[in-house]
Amino acid sequence: MRTGVWLVGARGSVATTSIVGALALRAGLAGPTGCVTELPELRGPALPSFAELVFGGHDPVLTPLAKRAETLAAAGVVPGRLVAALADDLAAVESDLRPAPVGGTQADRIAVVVADLTEFRRRHELARIVVVNVSATEAAVTPHPAHADPAALAEALAGPDEVLPPSSLYAYAAFTAGCSYVDFTPSTGARLPALAALAAERGLPYAGHDGKTGETLVKSVLAPMFAMRNLAVRSWSGINLLGGGDGATLADPAANAAKVESKQRVLGETLGYQPQGDTRIDYVEELGDFKTAWDLITFAGFLGTGMRLEFTWHGCDSALAAPLVLDLARITAATHAAGRSGPLPELAFFFKDPIGAPTHSLAEQWALLRQHVTRLHAAAEGTDVPAE
Amino acid sequence: MRTGVWLVGARGSVATTSIVGALALRAGLAGPTGCVTELPELRGPALPSFAELVFGGHDPVLTPLAKRAETLAAAGVVPGRLVAALADDLAAVESDLRPAPVGGTQADRIAVVVADLTEFRRRHELARIVVVNVSATEAAVTPHPAHADPAALAEALAGPDEVLPPSSLYAYAAFTAGCSYVDFTPSTGARLPALAALAAERGLPYAGHDGKTGETLVKSVLAPMFAMRNLAVRSWSGINLLGGGDGATLADPAANAAKVESKQRVLGETLGYQPQGDTRIDYVEELGDFKTAWDLITFAGFLGTGMRLEFTWHGCDSALAAPLVLDLARITAATHAAGRSGPLPELAFFFKDPIGAPTHSLAEQWALLRQHVTRLHAAAEGTDVPAE
Amino acid sequence: MRTGVWLVGARGSVATTSIVGALALRAGLAGPTGCVTELPELRGPALPSFAELVFGGHDPVLTPLAKRAETLAAAGVVPGRLVAALADDLAAVESDLRPAPVGGTQADRIAVVVADLTEFRRRHELARIVVVNVSATEAAVTPHPAHADPAALAEALAGPDEVLPPSSLYAYAAFTAGCSYVDFTPSTGARLPALAALAAERGLPYAGHDGKTGETLVKSVLAPMFAMRNLAVRSWSGINLLGGGDGATLADPAANAAKVESKQRVLGETLGYQPQGDTRIDYVEELGDFKTAWDLITFAGFLGTGMRLEFTWHGCDSALAAPLVLDLARITAATHAAGRSGPLPELAFFFKDPIGAPTHSLAEQWALLRQHVTRLHAAAEGTDVPAE
Amino acid sequence: MRTGVWLVGARGSVATTSIVGALALRAGLAGPTGCVTELPELRGPALPSFAELVFGGHDPVLTPLAKRAETLAAAGVVPGRLVAALADDLAAVESDLRPAPVGGTQADRIAVVVADLTEFRRRHELARIVVVNVSATEAAVTPHPAHADPAALAEALAGPDEVLPPSSLYAYAAFTAGCSYVDFTPSTGARLPALAALAAERGLPYAGHDGKTGETLVKSVLAPMFAMRNLAVRSWSGINLLGGGDGATLADPAANAAKVESKQRVLGETLGYQPQGDTRIDYVEELGDFKTAWDLITFAGFLGTGMRLEFTWHGCDSALAAPLVLDLARITAATHAAGRSGPLPELAFFFKDPIGAPTHSLAEQWALLRQHVTRLHAAAEGTDVPAE
Repeated sequence: MRTGVWLVGARGSVATTSIVGALALRAGLAGPTGCVTELPELRGPALPSFAELVFGGHDPVLTPLAKRAETLAAAGVVPGRLVAALADDLAAVESDLRPAPVGGTQADRIAVVVADLTEFRRRHELARIVVVNVSATEAAVTPHPAHADPAALAEALAGPDEVLPPSSLYAYAAFTAGCSYVDFTPSTGARLPALAALAAERGLPYAGHDGKTGETLVKSVLAPMFAMRNLAVRSWSGINLLGGGDGATLADPAANAAKVESKQRVLGETLGYQPQGDTRIDYVEELGDFKTAWDLITFAGFLGTGMRLEFTWHGCDSALAAPLVLDLARITAATHAAGRSGPLPELAFFFKDPIGAPTHSLAEQWALLRQHVTRLHAAAEGTDVPAE
Repeated sequence: MRTGVWLVGARGSVATTSIVGALALRAGLAGPTGCVTELPELRGPALPSFAELVFGGHDPVLTPLAKRAETLAAAGVVPGRLVAALADDLAAVESDLRPAPVGGTQADRIAVVVADLTEFRRRHELARIVVVNVSATEAAVTPHPAHADPAALAEALAGPDEVLPPSSLYAYAAFTAGCSYVDFTPSTGARLPALAALAAERGLPYAGHDGKTGETLVKSVLAPMFAMRNLAVRSWSGINLLGGGDGATLADPAANAAKVESKQRVLGETLGYQPQGDTRIDYVEELGDFKTAWDLITFAGFLGTGMRLEFTWHGCDSALAAPLVLDLARITAATHAAGRSGPLPELAFFFKDPIGAPTHSLAEQWALLRQHVTRLHAAAEGTDVPAE
Repeated sequence: MRTGVWLVGARGSVATTSIVGALALRAGLAGPTGCVTELPELRGPALPSFAELVFGGHDPVLTPLAKRAETLAAAGVVPGRLVAALADDLAAVESDLRPAPVGGTQADRIAVVVADLTEFRRRHELARIVVVNVSATEAAVTPHPAHADPAALAEALAGPDEVLPPSSLYAYAAFTAGCSYVDFTPSTGARLPALAALAAERGLPYAGHDGKTGETLVKSVLAPMFAMRNLAVRSWSGINLLGGGDGATLADPAANAAKVESKQRVLGETLGYQPQGDTRIDYVEELGDFKTAWDLITFAGFLGTGMRLEFTWHGCDSALAAPLVLDLARITAATHAAGRSGPLPELAFFFKDPIGAPTHSLAEQWALLRQHVTRLHAAAEGTDVPAE
Repeated sequence: MRTGVWLVGARGSVATTSIVGALALRAGLAGPTGCVTELPELRGPALPSFAELVFGGHDPVLTPLAKRAETLAAAGVVPGRLVAALADDLAAVESDLRPAPVGGTQADRIAVVVADLTEFRRRHELARIVVVNVSATEAAVTPHPAHADPAALAEALAGPDEVLPPSSLYAYAAFTAGCSYVDFTPSTGARLPALAALAAERGLPYAGHDGKTGETLVKSVLAPMFAMRNLAVRSWSGINLLGGGDGATLADPAANAAKVESKQRVLGETLGYQPQGDTRIDYVEELGDFKTAWDLITFAGFLGTGMRLEFTWHGCDSALAAPLVLDLARITAATHAAGRSGPLPELAFFFKDPIGAPTHSLAEQWALLRQHVTRLHAAAEGTDVPAE
């Protein structure tokens, strides 16, 4: 069951790491560390195998993929020996990458993306395609009346205005081309009423937002710990120091605001109250593709006794995100194959700011994910699916 | 439903904080921060209220409880204003404390404890008593043939040898007097075949071991996080710096070994493999009743990329343990009332080294606990109890 | 040799802690921990003793000093037993505190301050007075032509404009009243040409700026360490989380900017280049009078190998600042007595942003301070003063 | 002025990094980051240039140097491009490495080392040789009567006993061959009366012990900071987690003890009292050539207020040690050339446990080093040498 993975931002660090990793897994050159779908609890017949994944994508820059992979190897994100061994495979993927469309109306650009997706499906005889947005974080979207309604939106897109932010433009094109859509960034993506309506109309699933790869991952287990123990979190302050392309983008206060907000929301929603403190994001070029986050949590125990927990997370965002991109592509494709449409709160496990998710606790999200994937496998095997 | 809480080590920091806190809650002078049984998910009619708890206990030292409470207030463990306000209540509890029996055979000492428990029940017209061991950590037990069998044990106890370590002697006395038993320490307690047989024979429940109050609590959410994300933990090293009485005890390598072993077990059992690294415990008198633990975790993500997480926990063990002691007393009493006997793996949430527990994941332990307590409430209300 | 210490912001945390501490030292109730002038290297006959210090000051708020001291005791900044024991002494100091003048022209307000200082000197028969600014940090000063010249300034002060920020108004009043002046804050203070001229004209010494009490203190030894080892600091990022009055003030971006700038300057001036990274200051009310600072330093060793150092400082600014306020008062008074006027770069040891200081290395600043104080003692003893 | 650098443990990580680095500097392929002797304050005509250094050495293992360099490149200690570019130069050094002598009496082995040194000097027409011990840390030496006296020692060495530990055997051989000696390890080296007498007799200088590369370096600036500020350090606890060959050696408690002792000594000698707490060393293989050290310092400020400082050092010992090995070789050679003999306390800056050093403060050690090197330059230039 050949499945397309169309990456928006296909030459970025996350996309390149995802592609290198999937090719390495296919070639038996690397193991699936970090791939949730390879855990015994989630493995099974419903998911396309790594060998069945075919990669393509758009990017505004034109640096060759192999060059990008070498840069990541030099930075310690991927092993250099893999990049060397996969030169031919990377060249093959290169031939499926397209420049991001520019100029014309937004409708014109959507038409280009739809044509690229359609051609990609035809060329590789794909059962289906998952479009995954891994491009740079956008600033918060400017509201527009046409966001509320598909018909109004179609009309506005044909006009001269930039009605949709790029992430939503790609979601629109994905749905138009019959593809599911995953947003790994905090950008708007499919989160507009007109796009939700479009997905429903076409019977397509979508998931997002904002991959949970570091500090927020830790928060999503520590905050429930405090809640389960009835300990009163008084303050939770954090700072994220990051280099790389994402760091530079987030140095822009507008993009920063969106990210910071989704980072603190997990606390209020898990604890039932908002502790004092903020999360900061600072750009430190020299940290490269690695990120250091430091958090200080002060809390009160029995009779008000004050205590504290500090943690420092030193991670490589691309290496944390890439296996999750593969997981999301596999699960979303299988969910699409199973006939499910609309938002997928069952995939909350992967996101900082999950669509429609009932919980921010990682353990509860894991239970939801496991149940969802277990059903996909049961359906694929034709066995009974237990009622929820 | 008046319920006795008999504390072994009744003048220690944990016991004193538990008593001060329960009295403060009863008097409406403090809130239930840190008390798990006061969370909306666990609250209900099956549990005795704080006002229904009556405290007594044994201790080899004779320092007045009020004096101990003042010392803890000076050390910042409990608020001084509470100690002052509760002077009369503390004096009342003082009259229910008994010196730990010394001299004679172990059978003689058990008889004294049984008599003390029986008299305590009679004097306060208690529905039942939970004996909770919060005394200093013992060295690992020396095996003895009589540990295997109740009859052999009864005979050996009447002889001159020290057959049982103190924690087990109290468990024996508790069961003999018809009381349930909880071991909050890493000591042997009820973990001997002869004692398990005795509890079964008398229809009494018991729980333990080793209250999960700090570093291991954090481990029990972080280790599952790495497992759920399929991240490979390469090393997990930690050091615990602690003062106070517990620190001095644990400076003894024999006691230390038991504690360290239970601290690292959670990793191997959760991850399915044992990462490199050790946990150290060092005594630093000047830290007083506070403890600082530092852990370094190195792990590999996708394609082997190395990353790390560090945390520093600065907590007050007594203030973390005391509300759990109250929780355990309430839940164990209710479980006893419901007719359950034998070990209680459902209480694994509270322990580093839980008896018969199927998981070390805090979230899964929470689900088990919640289900157990929900059933106790349902039974208490006479409503249907859903099947497991 | 009775010496006045006139505190601007006399009811603030730093001032109150300084007063409580000096009274406790005088009464033999506390030792001189944190007082640099009591080290064997600096002790000697030139400095007024703690018993010879007489306190007074201005403050816009009117909360009684004893009340402020109790608040600090409740917050763990000073021991409650000292506040209780020093009630009479605090009441005596209370009678020497004056409300900060309001209304009228700045010249009017200066006249009030000068009168208060003169009356204080007369009432206590003081040999001299050191005015120490420990009030809240001001925003950066707005330039004014009259700042350049004493005559123009005198004229402008008599007009309706707010020509000087409060810290400089007090410096003006201090010099007019024949007092030396120390600025423990990052505010403008005496750092205006017109004020420098006034101090020179009156033969008065002054020192500042911005007491070095925490993160910057650590920077002032770590940055030279990297320099002495020829290690290349690539980034130095930090965040300061603080509650208390100072925290609230610094939450104001304008005041924040001044502080942050002086915090990073030490790096560039010590290393000879400016590493990447910023210092942040965030207000977290719940931290109270304690402050937590976290810094991450990334650096390159031989052949470019990347390494890192992290530190967390958890300190009480008032408890760190107060003994330095006493040290500065003692040394500045002795320097004044020795006939020295103008800025005192020899006191750089105490400041984040020292006036005219040739170095930011704590060790070099210590050598300068030691030499200066040794000469004061030699002069006081009438012995030979070695040439610099 | 061609100068030999004879490395004991010549194929170890520190030695290999030193050689690669010196060759890279000579070839202009790398800058002198981490080399103290290239700071403006120390640079000058007395020191042999990097191009004048000629490397040789002994090692019991026979792995080719180029292979060792590749291993270090794979571990991120040295850049792989340098190892590739320097293949010819490494091969040249390879031809000057000799197997460590085995068998026979210690006198026999000393004779082999002396012959190797003599031949090395002749072959390369070296002005002088510095023997630097960078081999694995030994266990503490077993006292022997012959250690007290050169004549007794000479006699004992000819017998069957292992009178000297290897580090001292090399010191003996170095002095016999007219070479100066530097011990970069905590081993005994030249620290025996008989060896001191031998060095004095031959007019040879020597320096040591135990290169100060990480946690202790930080201690040597932080401990003076607390002392200069009269802050009372109550406890200082630390743990060192390290992999690599040195880690495995130090996992041996005997070697560990020597290292730990020299790590804590700096505190007592700097502060004038010994704070509570210990330093631990644990072996964590997976950390490879990098080391993580964590220290917690609790201290009291004014009126006893408790505060704390934590730091985490993540460094590569070989990359920190190698430039210091080059610095020590250059300075010791120049000191030898200047006619100085005996122990060199002026080089305390480089060592955890400096011979005869008056201070553990890094800043004071820097001042001593600077003065020493300045005089060497002055003498080399024939200018006046200022009196100390």
